[in-house]
Amino acid sequence: MSELVLVGIGTGDPQHLTLQAVRALATVDLVLLPRKGEDKAALAELRRAICAELPRATPLPVAEFDLPERDPATPDYRQRVDDWHDAIAAAWLQALAAHPAARRVALLVWGDPSLYDSTLRIADRLRPAPQVTVIPGITALQALTAAHAIPLNGIGEPFTVTTGRRLRDHGWPPGVDTVVVMLDAGGAWQALAPEGIEIWWGACLGLPSQQTVHGPLAEVGPRILDVRAALRARQGWVMDIYLLRRAAR
Amino acid sequence: MSELVLVGIGTGDPQHLTLQAVRALATVDLVLLPRKGEDKAALAELRRAICAELPRATPLPVAEFDLPERDPATPDYRQRVDDWHDAIAAAWLQALAAHPAARRVALLVWGDPSLYDSTLRIADRLRPAPQVTVIPGITALQALTAAHAIPLNGIGEPFTVTTGRRLRDHGWPPGVDTVVVMLDAGGAWQALAPEGIEIWWGACLGLPSQQTVHGPLAEVGPRILDVRAALRARQGWVMDIYLLRRAAR
Repeated sequence: MSELVLVGIGTGDPQHLTLQAVRALATVDLVLLPRKGEDKAALAELRRAICAELPRATPLPVAEFDLPERDPATPDYRQRVDDWHDAIAAAWLQALAAHPAARRVALLVWGDPSLYDSTLRIADRLRPAPQVTVIPGITALQALTAAHAIPLNGIGEPFTVTTGRRLRDHGWPPGVDTVVVMLDAGGAWQALAPEGIEIWWGACLGLPSQQTVHGPLAEVGPRILDVRAALRARQGWVMDIYLLRRAAR
Repeated sequence: MSELVLVGIGTGDPQHLTLQAVRALATVDLVLLPRKGEDKAALAELRRAICAELPRATPLPVAEFDLPERDPATPDYRQRVDDWHDAIAAAWLQALAAHPAARRVALLVWGDPSLYDSTLRIADRLRPAPQVTVIPGITALQALTAAHAIPLNGIGEPFTVTTGRRLRDHGWPPGVDTVVVMLDAGGAWQALAPEGIEIWWGACLGLPSQQTVHGPLAEVGPRILDVRAALRARQGWVMDIYLLRRAAR
């Protein structure tokens, strides 16, 4: 492998692919696809469908690898993630060993490879180091604001993007009136006093199961938890993101 | 007009268009294009090139409008922007008056309509209100991180996106170690003590004139100012964005 192409494929709608992504996938030698656990089978299937529908002279060869799991026995969070990334890099190399002629190899990344995604960090572990090319993709942030047809920022104002864990542990981030929360295991906003906060929420954005809710947090918060739980019960998984805005202070 | 489709077209590379954007532009009745001042003629030309290359049965009808300017005589910033948005909405309606049969009208928006862009706020002024549909596009943020092949956030860490003006007036935003700066009139980072800060800078991302610089801010800051000034001298304009990261505290 001389080049690893990380292709941002958007949030689930195959129409999120850019012309650049389509062109890259039409010319690579191989795509590396993770086999997911049962509950995310729908997402693995979607990746395969994208590969199958590409405008290529020949079908795109696929190398599947088993995605390792994080070891819950490692107590330190950073160490656990580091070890996991090492294991994923090893799984890539093992899968690639069966395709020695593949020079340009692609990985399909949900959203964009820059945003709360590990692929770049895993790619950094490869030796000898291939050239890493990133093709940007539509993120859940843009899918959320598009679904609600809202601006992300106030005029000339900053915003902070953070995680559910951070919001729960540290509360409203300092210095901003707009916060976007990703990677929330569920309802981290409940750590906030909801008065004066508006929420724009979305789950499974870009997928047929997409759901959105908007309103004052105090009013719609409980409904969002219900919609989220129903999605999770039906699909076995749920991915959501939300934007919180409070009146300027 | 019954529907206004705001199409994010990415940062200048026509290959940033998503399949969703191509499909939307292949089916709308009309596209509204601003005539820009002389110095941004290259950007207006790029918008026209995108329209001309669409896979359509018939060429896409275009209605051009003169983009009003902000009135420097209005002292209050918010009021000046509000008045300007009113004037742009009026210019849209005037241009549309010549195309009474156009039901679905598109506007091409650089980057994504949610991010430091006024189009959604201007669309809110239209009466009767059309349905507003947003098609997400690749932002300068993603073009920047893709060009440098870097993650935007630290693992599980938050980041703040802000403006050059805010950075200059308020310094490093609180609570984060990663900051992305947009809308900088030039070198706002000079308000910061550069020690321990790394910068990933990009200008004209996605365009043939794209430039990137990366390194310790203290070391590469002056060079970035030079590259920026040279681009501006050559093109008459420059758009840049940068990511600043400091060691975690």
